[in-house]
Amino acid sequence: MTCSANSYTPGMGRWQSGAGERLERAALELFLEQGFDATTVPQITARAGLTTRTFFRHYADKREVVFGGVDFIQAFVVSKVASAPAFVTPMEAVARAYQEVGANFQENIEVFRQRQRVIDATLELQARELGKLAVIASAIAGALRERDVTVESATLAAELGTLVFRITFERWLTGHGLHDWPSLFREQLNEAGAVMAGSL
Amino acid sequence: MTCSANSYTPGMGRWQSGAGERLERAALELFLEQGFDATTVPQITARAGLTTRTFFRHYADKREVVFGGVDFIQAFVVSKVASAPAFVTPMEAVARAYQEVGANFQENIEVFRQRQRVIDATLELQARELGKLAVIASAIAGALRERDVTVESATLAAELGTLVFRITFERWLTGHGLHDWPSLFREQLNEAGAVMAGSL
Repeated sequence: MTCSANSYTPGMGRWQSGAGERLERAALELFLEQGFDATTVPQITARAGLTTRTFFRHYADKREVVFGGVDFIQAFVVSKVASAPAFVTPMEAVARAYQEVGANFQENIEVFRQRQRVIDATLELQARELGKLAVIASAIAGALRERDVTVESATLAAELGTLVFRITFERWLTGHGLHDWPSLFREQLNEAGAVMAGSL
Repeated sequence: MTCSANSYTPGMGRWQSGAGERLERAALELFLEQGFDATTVPQITARAGLTTRTFFRHYADKREVVFGGVDFIQAFVVSKVASAPAFVTPMEAVARAYQEVGANFQENIEVFRQRQRVIDATLELQARELGKLAVIASAIAGALRERDVTVESATLAAELGTLVFRITFERWLTGHGLHDWPSLFREQLNEAGAVMAGSL
């Protein structure tokens, strides 16, 4: 997986500037103004002042513009899981990665909110987001398997962590980003553990 | 939600016979023989010896033929959660429902396996299945909210239970149905709790 120029980079605390970001911003504006279906790639590139050739160097199609950040999250989380200290449990390795990936989400909250409004209005994008999350979980499970975790535990830790990430993200966004991501993620993880323990 | 004639009925221990089931079997055969994209509704109805009019009384489109059982699972699980005794925790209410819904899966394992081969070969159906599971989780959360569970706990119990259902189903199917569903579901739930506890 490569991180394109629009990747969100927690270490830098902002979306990198450049063609990828300009295309993303232009696309989200147009999707919100006139709908996802009605928006074409030439319209996006015209708004961004770039060529369609540049567009297709960054994104496979107009749906992918919405998911550049998700691809980055996958690369970041998988790499963190792979490099977690050996003594860390599978679940804790996943939890630390998801906790860290959102540390600077706050600085991009306006883009996240625009993006969410686009997804909420478009069934096709909702399905694609679920698919992307499934791919992330599967990639994390693969990274855990490299750490000699059983396939069962790897799958569960990856799926549980990704579920808590999704729920935390929804709550963070609807709370208008007022919550501190790392604390909110840990709180949701603890709450999930408490709810789960209710059946044991 | 209505349960169409092809709904899987655990109480009866078999898929009900009738037009819905004939259409489902014909569709799965054709999807496996010639692919999902290449199969048309008239081909399905010709194979089943029924009219397209009958088809559209049972299913909105050819994708839906694959998900008749999922719609039934949703209706069953939501109704079980809604009628669980008041003293039962949210997670346990969800767990009991998912444990019970699969009690007779074994009798339909060949249809489940055919169906899984079709889904595994078709990205569009994989996305739709994830969407269906998200809808089930949301419906369960709604049923829990009616029991005066907080929205946070309702969401977590519904999502966690649905995740364990999905993982159990995969393991059950790849284990060729040799596992007893209720035991396997409970085992996966306990394992999920143990994995989760690794981060607390």
